[in-house]
Amino acid sequence: MFPENSVGVVVPRKMHCNEPLVLRSGAVLPGFELVFETYGTLNAARSNAVLVCHALSGSHHVAGRYADDPDNLGWWDNLVGPGKPLDTGKFFVVGVNNLGGCYGSTGPLSMNPETGRVYGADFPLVTVEDWVAAQARLADRLGIETWAAVIGGSLGGMQALEWSLQFPERIRHAMVIASAPKLSAQNIAFNEVARQAILSDPDFHDGYYADHGVVPVNGLRLARMVGHITYLSDSQMAEKFGRQLRHGEHKFSYDVDFEIESYLRYQGNKFAGFFDANTYLMTTKALDYFDPAYDYDGNLAAALARAKARFFVASFSTDWRFAPSRSREIVFALLDNRLRVVYAEIDCDAGHDSFLLDDRHYHAVLRAYLENIAV
Amino acid sequence: MFPENSVGVVVPRKMHCNEPLVLRSGAVLPGFELVFETYGTLNAARSNAVLVCHALSGSHHVAGRYADDPDNLGWWDNLVGPGKPLDTGKFFVVGVNNLGGCYGSTGPLSMNPETGRVYGADFPLVTVEDWVAAQARLADRLGIETWAAVIGGSLGGMQALEWSLQFPERIRHAMVIASAPKLSAQNIAFNEVARQAILSDPDFHDGYYADHGVVPVNGLRLARMVGHITYLSDSQMAEKFGRQLRHGEHKFSYDVDFEIESYLRYQGNKFAGFFDANTYLMTTKALDYFDPAYDYDGNLAAALARAKARFFVASFSTDWRFAPSRSREIVFALLDNRLRVVYAEIDCDAGHDSFLLDDRHYHAVLRAYLENIAV
Repeated sequence: MFPENSVGVVVPRKMHCNEPLVLRSGAVLPGFELVFETYGTLNAARSNAVLVCHALSGSHHVAGRYADDPDNLGWWDNLVGPGKPLDTGKFFVVGVNNLGGCYGSTGPLSMNPETGRVYGADFPLVTVEDWVAAQARLADRLGIETWAAVIGGSLGGMQALEWSLQFPERIRHAMVIASAPKLSAQNIAFNEVARQAILSDPDFHDGYYADHGVVPVNGLRLARMVGHITYLSDSQMAEKFGRQLRHGEHKFSYDVDFEIESYLRYQGNKFAGFFDANTYLMTTKALDYFDPAYDYDGNLAAALARAKARFFVASFSTDWRFAPSRSREIVFALLDNRLRVVYAEIDCDAGHDSFLLDDRHYHAVLRAYLENIAV
Repeated sequence: MFPENSVGVVVPRKMHCNEPLVLRSGAVLPGFELVFETYGTLNAARSNAVLVCHALSGSHHVAGRYADDPDNLGWWDNLVGPGKPLDTGKFFVVGVNNLGGCYGSTGPLSMNPETGRVYGADFPLVTVEDWVAAQARLADRLGIETWAAVIGGSLGGMQALEWSLQFPERIRHAMVIASAPKLSAQNIAFNEVARQAILSDPDFHDGYYADHGVVPVNGLRLARMVGHITYLSDSQMAEKFGRQLRHGEHKFSYDVDFEIESYLRYQGNKFAGFFDANTYLMTTKALDYFDPAYDYDGNLAAALARAKARFFVASFSTDWRFAPSRSREIVFALLDNRLRVVYAEIDCDAGHDSFLLDDRHYHAVLRAYLENIAV
């Protein structure tokens, strides 16, 4: 049923944490749950654990399939498995749904113990720093003192970077892919449009839509549509869709004329069917806020001085959301600190989403790096 | 009151046309009005007329101010006036609000003579070709057999190009600025997000919002916000706003954190206060549909073979909406036809909106070209 390099059937688990978590905003979560999956076996020395951090719409379901939902393949299944670049024959791989997520970890869809109602807008804003703090609790629980590596793409890469700063002793390799040390004004602008689409949807009800038995579907689908444009490259869109007409002629109406419209509507509708609007809002804020150099007058090298990990940084030629130049900022700041860093700039047509694909050169360089991590 | 290089107080005029206009969609407008302004004097030979075509949100009000609304400066006032690059001492300049517009020409806000109600969604989709056909009626009325030049930026540039194809004998110079021979998939994608924002606004009422006494404000402001991101360059946004905080600290809410958010909200709200949603929708469709090579198997050179004008084409280095490469497509297709073309690629930080600015090099090259047009 499964190819031999698949992790096969996987089962998510939950960690309950009753110790309060003080968030960067000052708010306190009295306790929380994280849903996670693991693949491979933790070795006796507990030295082979790798944490996979997810991006905006990702989850703890990194690899494999569920017995009762066999079409639901993990989002990074092409990377993780026996014999794959992140080899579960060697590594114990952990995927976790971040705090505030909508896949089972405590978040806006959870019951607020103080009110007995769904949190909704009362769930506090969480940041990249908070996610990492919560992930550290999971590491404690799993008996993992030090990660062999923390790896992530996009927002996941920011978490890998944050691990190296918040817990320099607990991470040996930080693998930061298709990421940036902070968002640009243009990045924030796109997030703001997405947020305004959700916030202005009459079905949003100030975030308490669950109490009204509705979901801000229109806002979510608009947010996803605008996001999607930034995930793809101009050239890939041109190649994949170009000006191809759906019905072979102009319709002179606002129905679908061009295939690209159909694609965006499909992606938007699909996303609005399963993702939580409050989680979307707070995740974009976590992206906007992330800026390790903020407390160092914008000096990224100074901010990274406390890191001790070795770094793998990768970017993609056609990624205009987090262009290669953004990755190079990280690389140069690491070099300023004489930290060890491998940097790969991959020629790939798929824009920001390249990090999710099994591009041959990309996976070859990942494989080589991961093979050289001692466990 | 006015600087000496201003056209001063201007007064819009209206042309009524009772002859039916068959649109590209097959729909027929029984008659229409166009609102327009003129600056300078038509010479005896009627050889000095220049038509200025507007882009998405522009109008007939190209230069000068109104006596009763002195803050309302024409959108290309820096270009048009006595002694300015488009010198009204030499040229008779005409600005016109396109068919389907919302500044006084017949459009979705006009009364539908067949129903006695505001057109709303019943106003037929108009295209770049239709606009040019309507502009030709205005030229007839003004006694202008041949334009010395037709000039426009962005969507306005498409109209200048279309003039050279639909009426090759009636245009001596086509000045196509910050434009493209057709939209890319990414361009269409952004338009589609804007359209969906409007179409999904509950106040849109399938386009008959006037009958309900409302305006789809949220949809319009989202459309404008996403549009605005594409008008500015990444670098200019970084320089102008960067990650500057509005209140000096993160607010941990969905109020404004960053200055760029404040700017986008302001632009969106302002636009939603005066622009018509149906006009916005149809104008984005006119953009999407424009593709003179469509009937020539995508061969732009073949499409431009019937042009007889001389061409001025200009692009801006940081324009990622219609990048310089898009202008070069036009230039190469013109050269394939041995047509005369001057091409300028201007180094300017302001992205797509550069065409509206009085950048020194840009205006110098425009001035030089316009000075050399014989009248």
